[in-house]
Amino acid sequence: MRLAAVLLALLAAPVFAQPLALPDLPPYILTNARIYTVDDANPMADAIAVDPTGVIAAVGSREDLTAMYTWPEVDAKGHTVIPGLIDAHAHLMNLGTSLLQADLVGTTSKADVIARLTAFEADLPEGAWLTGRGWDQNDWGEGEPFPTRADLDAAFPTRPVWLVRIDGHAGWANTAALRASGVDPNAEPPADREGGATIRDARGLPTGVYVDGAMDLVGASVPEADAAFYEEALTRALEETARFGLTGVHEAGIPLALIDMYRAFAAEGRFGIRNYAMVSQEVFPAFCEQYPDMINDERLVVRSVKVYADGALGSRGAALLAEYADEPGNTGLLFMSPEVLESVVADAMACGLQVNTHAIGDRANRAVLDAYESAMAETGAASGAGRHRIEHAQVVSLDDIQRTADLGVIASVQPTHATSDMPWAETRVGADRVRGAYAWRRLIDAGARLALGSDFPVERVSPLLGFHAAVTRQDAEDAPAGGWYGNQVLSREEALRGFTLDAAYAGFMEDMVGSLEAGKRADFVILSQDLMRVPPEAILDTEVVMTVLDGAPIYVAE
Amino acid sequence: MRLAAVLLALLAAPVFAQPLALPDLPPYILTNARIYTVDDANPMADAIAVDPTGVIAAVGSREDLTAMYTWPEVDAKGHTVIPGLIDAHAHLMNLGTSLLQADLVGTTSKADVIARLTAFEADLPEGAWLTGRGWDQNDWGEGEPFPTRADLDAAFPTRPVWLVRIDGHAGWANTAALRASGVDPNAEPPADREGGATIRDARGLPTGVYVDGAMDLVGASVPEADAAFYEEALTRALEETARFGLTGVHEAGIPLALIDMYRAFAAEGRFGIRNYAMVSQEVFPAFCEQYPDMINDERLVVRSVKVYADGALGSRGAALLAEYADEPGNTGLLFMSPEVLESVVADAMACGLQVNTHAIGDRANRAVLDAYESAMAETGAASGAGRHRIEHAQVVSLDDIQRTADLGVIASVQPTHATSDMPWAETRVGADRVRGAYAWRRLIDAGARLALGSDFPVERVSPLLGFHAAVTRQDAEDAPAGGWYGNQVLSREEALRGFTLDAAYAGFMEDMVGSLEAGKRADFVILSQDLMRVPPEAILDTEVVMTVLDGAPIYVAE
Repeated sequence: MRLAAVLLALLAAPVFAQPLALPDLPPYILTNARIYTVDDANPMADAIAVDPTGVIAAVGSREDLTAMYTWPEVDAKGHTVIPGLIDAHAHLMNLGTSLLQADLVGTTSKADVIARLTAFEADLPEGAWLTGRGWDQNDWGEGEPFPTRADLDAAFPTRPVWLVRIDGHAGWANTAALRASGVDPNAEPPADREGGATIRDARGLPTGVYVDGAMDLVGASVPEADAAFYEEALTRALEETARFGLTGVHEAGIPLALIDMYRAFAAEGRFGIRNYAMVSQEVFPAFCEQYPDMINDERLVVRSVKVYADGALGSRGAALLAEYADEPGNTGLLFMSPEVLESVVADAMACGLQVNTHAIGDRANRAVLDAYESAMAETGAASGAGRHRIEHAQVVSLDDIQRTADLGVIASVQPTHATSDMPWAETRVGADRVRGAYAWRRLIDAGARLALGSDFPVERVSPLLGFHAAVTRQDAEDAPAGGWYGNQVLSREEALRGFTLDAAYAGFMEDMVGSLEAGKRADFVILSQDLMRVPPEAILDTEVVMTVLDGAPIYVAE
Repeated sequence: MRLAAVLLALLAAPVFAQPLALPDLPPYILTNARIYTVDDANPMADAIAVDPTGVIAAVGSREDLTAMYTWPEVDAKGHTVIPGLIDAHAHLMNLGTSLLQADLVGTTSKADVIARLTAFEADLPEGAWLTGRGWDQNDWGEGEPFPTRADLDAAFPTRPVWLVRIDGHAGWANTAALRASGVDPNAEPPADREGGATIRDARGLPTGVYVDGAMDLVGASVPEADAAFYEEALTRALEETARFGLTGVHEAGIPLALIDMYRAFAAEGRFGIRNYAMVSQEVFPAFCEQYPDMINDERLVVRSVKVYADGALGSRGAALLAEYADEPGNTGLLFMSPEVLESVVADAMACGLQVNTHAIGDRANRAVLDAYESAMAETGAASGAGRHRIEHAQVVSLDDIQRTADLGVIASVQPTHATSDMPWAETRVGADRVRGAYAWRRLIDAGARLALGSDFPVERVSPLLGFHAAVTRQDAEDAPAGGWYGNQVLSREEALRGFTLDAAYAGFMEDMVGSLEAGKRADFVILSQDLMRVPPEAILDTEVVMTVLDGAPIYVAE
């Protein structure tokens, strides 16, 4: 449907206008490129030959490859090429559904809101609700009161519009949305019940803004997501990820219901990138029953379970071994007792699943290591067997870092979490524990394997942001100067490996993708500049020129 | 003589008492080791076979090697093995001469001084002067006045003792030293001349302490260094370096006179490690004339010149592009005009020397790059040809970092300089320029090769200190927590490479040493723990268990 059309259009589109003209389909020999292969045996090359099935025939020098193959030669014009990027921890469907809402974060005025909504509406089917999220009237100038439905009605006289405030505590509707919800805009609304408020104008009529418990008066009428909605969401998410150089994601937790839809997408050739999806903890027994052989498609692999051990650090829900530095008496919360966690892990391992457990606090990380160790010991599994992972591994006791490595547990970390959290993380955990927080260098030096990701849409999609954060420990404005706990940086080679080969390994796909070498699928990204050599301040100026999957472009920059 | 005796004793000594018993001479197969080879094609191994000539026959698994060779097997008992360490910038003879003086830095009392002197005297020939350096009476307790000769006379009634204060501005003699200098200790000294002072007691007699211009009254009588002195100094220096795991040094600047002595040492088999010595700038024309084929011995290679472009940052003698942040109007000093520098560089290159230029400030670094670029362009030399180096490359303009890499200029840097200078370096250059200061990560990411060193005896000898500083940007007490401009750290692999293979490359010795692979000399170090995996705080607990050169132990820990 939509994605198929987009993909067909893309594949059929003449890219001759591009300075770099890759054919729609292989075979070809791409030459005059700066290729970072992430293959230790052959780290750099200037040419890559892709066979008619989208498999890499050879990686080497132009001379050698043009002598070996008669395929057309494509001049990469000195562009840099890296393996297709893989986000090892993300929420693909959440990204898709968020893309079906207008993003109003950071709007500077009501006119700006209208402009964004108008642009967003262009892609909406007729009659569909326009929903959005992220407005904050404080951003629009001093003393701005709540907006009103009148602000929206001129631009959207008939389409229902429902916009949730940045904090989730208020909704802003237009008059069409009130009507679609059975609310008479010209009648005084019923008295507010406790915990909610309908904002009224001077005449007592509803302004269109509903607070907390009253939000349902309109919000409950937004049509529920149906199959078409999810298909559209997935389609958008796949377009969005390809745009940023991703050829793969690891989707951290999906319900069983999505699996059928995903399989259908994959079977129809519409799953534009490779998804390594983890099933949610609640449904893994059903999954194991229904799919005893797991799912092993080239675009969809399901053979792992996402388990939650604790909450988040920002909200002080992460389980710590000692109390929060900024809240005496509070040590956070384990979602399960260590005993229950251990039994869940053992059950999941028993049915052959890779276990990927969310652990933020040092108590949670230790409980997960304990559970993995004990379950692995029961079955006599060697270190690293099963490739079990800790998702986030955010605050790890210094006593557990070497243990993580020794157990062969993969640390699935998100570099932008460190730069997002750095303003307050040390306040939460104090100067001692922070040494084991976001401690990528310690982990890698202890011998642990890192799979890198973004956690989008919690963070932004572009893996370049994560790459930059990983190698600088700085935010996008290059602050602080030496990086936040700067000596925990990764080298660029390590960061690239974490977003390619080691992410592929963490998803059992390293024989198929993750590096550019003969026999693997031709998933790669062409960049506007040499990401591995430009000064750190210039990394984020890098643009994705083209994203290529199985040898065919799935994204081409304008 | 001395070293030969020591070496013979070492080689002959029964090492059976050691938990790890390497034979005195190869061949053998060392097994059960954690070997970091610094060979990309084969990064780790557990066994290494050394042939009877001290050449590595093979590196691999115990199984393979014991099947291939019948040589005796030696159990490394799980110890970690790395290639022999190479200090790419050091002053070997200066280390030796400093070892012939008692080190009085940090003494806590006069009794402590006497204790150190007594220990030091044990190795002195009868009748020789005992000289020392580094005392500071302020370290000995509140209000301590200058010490006196009486403090020394009890312990040293007949041997002349001459101890220079830490700042070089005072000397402290015993009575024997006064007598040996023709000074009557029981007579009033002559009136002080301007710029000097003889400290007198209540009776007007000399206390033994001489300040500034008066220091020569005794100091001038210390016997001048003769050949025997230098031989002894070199012998001590070679023992000292082997003790810390060094199998090679690059000696940054020697006079012609030392070359003959060094060659004799090498010919007699007394040059215990490998020295890549640079001739001093003043003598390179004479060197080129005298040694048109250079010197290419396995223990002594001379084919480079040390040039000085500017001074030091601490004393504000480094040449900056703009004024010092803490001294308006001062931009430091180039030792030569850019034109003269360029002609010196061109002349040195013309006689086939590698040019290694000391450059600290950004103006000096730029002038050196200009000179290299222009001289290389004249001869049509490709990037990296000649392997020319910048010694220190300490404050580099951000505009010159990529240029350093593109010209193929090797950055010969000393990680401990960063951690020694971090208390005041930013004060000198300000927040902007400091981003290009000690900026190893920027240099390596731009594609430059780093050769690592210590600059001993300016810094301490142990390369582990440099390794630690390189990977943490912290001092030996692990401060500051995230490292000083922490995101400029190197990975441990990069740091090890900088002290081994890349240092070897910077000395044209990479075909002989620098990594552990078949065909290279068996230079390696056995460590007490896994330097590459222990937590960063534990790196400096690593001890050298054994240093091995050409397959034979040159240092064995007690």
